[in-house]
Amino acid sequence: MTIDKNFLSIIKKIQKDIDEILITYPFPDKPKYLYDPLKYVLKGKGKRLRPILLILTGNAFELEGSDIKNAALAVELLHNFTLVHDDIMDNDQVRHGQPTVQNKWDTSTSILVGDAIFVEAQRLIGNINTNSQNIYNRFNDVALDVCVGQAYDKEYEGKEEISLDEYLHMIENKTGALIGLCAEIPALLSNQDSKVCEQLRDFGYNIGKSFQIQDDILEIFSNAKSMGKSLGSDILSKKQTALTITARKMVPKEWSDFCYTIKDCPIEKTIELLRSFFDQNDIYTEVKSLSDKYLQDGLDNLLVVPKSNRNELKLFTNYLKNREY
Amino acid sequence: MTIDKNFLSIIKKIQKDIDEILITYPFPDKPKYLYDPLKYVLKGKGKRLRPILLILTGNAFELEGSDIKNAALAVELLHNFTLVHDDIMDNDQVRHGQPTVQNKWDTSTSILVGDAIFVEAQRLIGNINTNSQNIYNRFNDVALDVCVGQAYDKEYEGKEEISLDEYLHMIENKTGALIGLCAEIPALLSNQDSKVCEQLRDFGYNIGKSFQIQDDILEIFSNAKSMGKSLGSDILSKKQTALTITARKMVPKEWSDFCYTIKDCPIEKTIELLRSFFDQNDIYTEVKSLSDKYLQDGLDNLLVVPKSNRNELKLFTNYLKNREY
Repeated sequence: MTIDKNFLSIIKKIQKDIDEILITYPFPDKPKYLYDPLKYVLKGKGKRLRPILLILTGNAFELEGSDIKNAALAVELLHNFTLVHDDIMDNDQVRHGQPTVQNKWDTSTSILVGDAIFVEAQRLIGNINTNSQNIYNRFNDVALDVCVGQAYDKEYEGKEEISLDEYLHMIENKTGALIGLCAEIPALLSNQDSKVCEQLRDFGYNIGKSFQIQDDILEIFSNAKSMGKSLGSDILSKKQTALTITARKMVPKEWSDFCYTIKDCPIEKTIELLRSFFDQNDIYTEVKSLSDKYLQDGLDNLLVVPKSNRNELKLFTNYLKNREY
Repeated sequence: MTIDKNFLSIIKKIQKDIDEILITYPFPDKPKYLYDPLKYVLKGKGKRLRPILLILTGNAFELEGSDIKNAALAVELLHNFTLVHDDIMDNDQVRHGQPTVQNKWDTSTSILVGDAIFVEAQRLIGNINTNSQNIYNRFNDVALDVCVGQAYDKEYEGKEEISLDEYLHMIENKTGALIGLCAEIPALLSNQDSKVCEQLRDFGYNIGKSFQIQDDILEIFSNAKSMGKSLGSDILSKKQTALTITARKMVPKEWSDFCYTIKDCPIEKTIELLRSFFDQNDIYTEVKSLSDKYLQDGLDNLLVVPKSNRNELKLFTNYLKNREY
């Protein structure tokens, strides 16, 4: 299945709309300490995948209007809040194609900017009128999941005993939960019964896990410019990734020897060597097929959506499968 | 007016209840990266003034039950979230009588712990059933005010041109807004008309401003042990305080000379000299009377509460006036 050109223009239009809203969002000018870096974060070149998914799921339930728009912005802001804080914790220097806040300003500024972006997300959720308390509660359950996922991510740094299951549980919280919410909110807004809401949530969970596994792949196999962030930083900071865990499991001796060999290599060389290693030992193929499996599971969850309205979400799944950044 | 012993036992009881709930709160054990330091923060010896005020205002409207309890915990958690993040930004080493999270663990941990405490506060607000959307929106308006206040506080560091009005606007956001919310929520929960809600909010704003001004005083005139945090840290980090701004305004030449004199003094000596300076130049008296003026304004706001139910809130105001830590 190649990428549908008409579909590409649909998601580019949504992306452009979200960018436009974020750039023209009526934030005050003062205090400059807060609002200058906050506006800077929101004009970064994000992929806007979460609001795109939320709006496409809204289309599947034939929803439009302010509730969908507020929810779409809120999930994008929640995501940006976590990025700003994670970038401090992971000491990342580049995000969305520009220096991170703690790189351009400092740690204090980026803590506060993250906090304020999170509050703004909550205020948008507060404007939702349908099923509001339920959505508010789901939003904050997921925000907690994201914190929990990030905590596991930090806790697992450098721990060689972490299993693939532990890794999957971590990314389910860190990435799956929010993408699950993007697909669940429109079902809640259209007052679908709980089975439909759950299947939509699981759809998002599954494609979210696939997305994160693919992110691990792209961190090694993409190029830095299109990713908009530095490559290899997860591996350098000894984070658990689908690739490293699978290598440790499939070819433990070779992986251990290889890690010793690359210990003092510069980053570019390390990435080049990692690519060959993961290719030659079929790690790449194994991990890519795990990612594809979750996409397929996601497609199965979509069966609760009326067939006539399912196409955009199927195309979105295919779009994730083929993304190169 | 001395402190009423019966009233003291009422607030000690509330404080104990809040401590108990926070210590036995059913947080999970894992991930330990998150929950060990999170539980550590919540067992710190906080004054619990915000939930005390909220519960006393609830008494004034003859409210009890789960909504009041959830709200009381939520404001305490919101406050603790801001303390954890502010302590990183201000590089503070001691809080509530124990090492701060970034001191005992590290910056990444304390960012995440602050985030999760904030999310937990939101989840408690999400459990409120009366007037829920309204309370949720007010809660997040106030959370934004607190961020804005903290941004001004950071922006004003070292700026000698900051006026008393700018300082008052800063503390209105940083401290007044949340204390205002503590008095407003019970009015919202009891569906009072908007005039009553506003007066209660203003009552909290006024006593909150008074509280912050007094905090500036206590940072110099209290002793470190009873404060549970290091003294003089605001002045050392060149923050604007009611005392320094008033000194700069009332005796600019003497203050400027004095600042030059203490430049290289150790902290204990600096605090001793500051005490004498503020005493001898009537700065202490001036600032204390400003603090008392806001308490009086707060008492005037209380006239909307039926006279028979007003006493505990008056006693609380008196308690703030006489506090020594």
